[in-house]
Amino acid sequence: MYGAGDVRIENVPDARISEASDALVRVTRASICGSDLWPYNQLGHNDSGQRMGHEFIGVVEVVGADVRTVKAGNVVVAPFAWSDGTCVFCQDGLQTSCLHGGWWARDGIDGGQGEAVRVPQADGTLVVLPVGPDDALMPSLLTLSDVMGTGHHAALAANVGPGKTAAVVGDGAVGLCGVIAAKRLGAEQIIILGRHRDRIALAKEFGATDVVSERGDEAVERVRELTGGFGAHSVLECVGYEQSMVTAISIARPGGAVGRVGLPQHESIPTTMQTFFDNVTIGGGPAPARAYIEPLLPDVLEGRIEPGRVFDRTGSLDEVPDGYRAMNERETIKFLIEF
Amino acid sequence: MYGAGDVRIENVPDARISEASDALVRVTRASICGSDLWPYNQLGHNDSGQRMGHEFIGVVEVVGADVRTVKAGNVVVAPFAWSDGTCVFCQDGLQTSCLHGGWWARDGIDGGQGEAVRVPQADGTLVVLPVGPDDALMPSLLTLSDVMGTGHHAALAANVGPGKTAAVVGDGAVGLCGVIAAKRLGAEQIIILGRHRDRIALAKEFGATDVVSERGDEAVERVRELTGGFGAHSVLECVGYEQSMVTAISIARPGGAVGRVGLPQHESIPTTMQTFFDNVTIGGGPAPARAYIEPLLPDVLEGRIEPGRVFDRTGSLDEVPDGYRAMNERETIKFLIEF
Repeated sequence: MYGAGDVRIENVPDARISEASDALVRVTRASICGSDLWPYNQLGHNDSGQRMGHEFIGVVEVVGADVRTVKAGNVVVAPFAWSDGTCVFCQDGLQTSCLHGGWWARDGIDGGQGEAVRVPQADGTLVVLPVGPDDALMPSLLTLSDVMGTGHHAALAANVGPGKTAAVVGDGAVGLCGVIAAKRLGAEQIIILGRHRDRIALAKEFGATDVVSERGDEAVERVRELTGGFGAHSVLECVGYEQSMVTAISIARPGGAVGRVGLPQHESIPTTMQTFFDNVTIGGGPAPARAYIEPLLPDVLEGRIEPGRVFDRTGSLDEVPDGYRAMNERETIKFLIEF
Repeated sequence: MYGAGDVRIENVPDARISEASDALVRVTRASICGSDLWPYNQLGHNDSGQRMGHEFIGVVEVVGADVRTVKAGNVVVAPFAWSDGTCVFCQDGLQTSCLHGGWWARDGIDGGQGEAVRVPQADGTLVVLPVGPDDALMPSLLTLSDVMGTGHHAALAANVGPGKTAAVVGDGAVGLCGVIAAKRLGAEQIIILGRHRDRIALAKEFGATDVVSERGDEAVERVRELTGGFGAHSVLECVGYEQSMVTAISIARPGGAVGRVGLPQHESIPTTMQTFFDNVTIGGGPAPARAYIEPLLPDVLEGRIEPGRVFDRTGSLDEVPDGYRAMNERETIKFLIEF
């Protein structure tokens, strides 16, 4: 990406092993993330270009001398942050804060929207999948790299549990996965706040029981009507705008929790004194997707959840620039890249 | 209180039962709360005066026809909010959000800094104490009305647990009770941020292992040094100023939690993007002190905790105006009123 709206497919030097803990992965599936749309709209022009992509599955070509758990030929999924798997934060299941980890497509690390990736800290980062590289479950497996784990993280941070009411702010791919996560964790009532007809339809199939298409104060009023006047126990903030955060906080029930996973486009959390008096908890952040791959994997493999349905367009690497455009114009929910 | 700095002891009409769910309590002990100092510094002048006080113990004089669990002669403690004990929020242990409850010294309800109080919703509000009205444990029992429960709430909201590091921002009575609560919940390292010598000394006796007397960025730096560079798992914000909240958030470790109980003097929560990337949770609010009286009571009765030591001055009702002054000038930590 050379600037807002300027996505180009270019040849770069071949990815190769440089550390003994690396693996070289040939990418077989990747995707465009809603968070890629922030730079797509805001990135200033730069002559050198910015690698892109942090959601991918691939086949291991070769591994460094120290790699133990991954070997050539393995089909692997990578979470959206790489991590050593051994530091104090990885041990706590917070791999996004790994002391020796980092982000794809930053600081000389390859991006996932490309044919091959050097994966640092391969033992900590990659999870071997027990399927072939073209398995029919690939779309759902690919969501474990980010959006499904992120929806799950929002649900956990919002303390979703059996019998509770969950409200999901945002009907993008993460919000839709938040619906799946809320249902999986036992929420009894799941309210989705969104206004795109196709996404709402999918949210209902995923388990949403109520739809609120109003915005702002009207949305708050409507959620209160749907929840006996109290608000939702658990609110999943899956957008990141200040206004969506205000809505999220305003629809939380006293004693409830907001799990925020939308990349905030603002610094302060726009609470009010009421948030304090209502004892509303605000948690969340980037999902430690790595921690969630193993617990979510059986549900994907056995078909209990189908997060891959958020992909409504598949194309080749050459179609990625148009994929960005289509997602940005809300013509497409999420774009899957087949290599 | 007739305005900032203007506290008067006046005769008012006798408190009396007006609802069948009321109890009339003759106050035997009461206290001035740190939160009473906000109006002491900021209240505009008003001709009618504002009743004050929300921490009291007394003897039940008479009860309304519907009261079942409390009877004349009982020694009772009142939490700082009154509540019915039966609504959905009371059942969840969040009595500060009771659908039929409210606050002392507001909306025609008596304040605790007076000789007698009509207690609404007596069954839900009052807890009978198994001691006489002049028991030596009275100071500690009185803290169950607010500061000890509030410190405990901060510790719970900050997810204090065995082996964890807790940092307590503020060395007032609530902060000191926060130290007690953190130790009681098993924290291994307890850092108090404060700079009053007498309070720090008491904090150490209560279990604080480290003292940080710096402020702002220097305090943040010092806490990091004390915690292996990571920050504290649990931060108890016991002040309420924007700057103290900034400090609290800045010293939380990735994946950590801030429990805020200081009455916020600001609307937004002044977080940064780092708070999001670190997955720091922010919770808390007014403590449901009523919910905590029963679990904390045995520890007080059996002497395992001594929160009453936060009272460093005792006086009569006539001395209350000077008690406000002394607390406001940090000459006194907390003032106990004996009737």
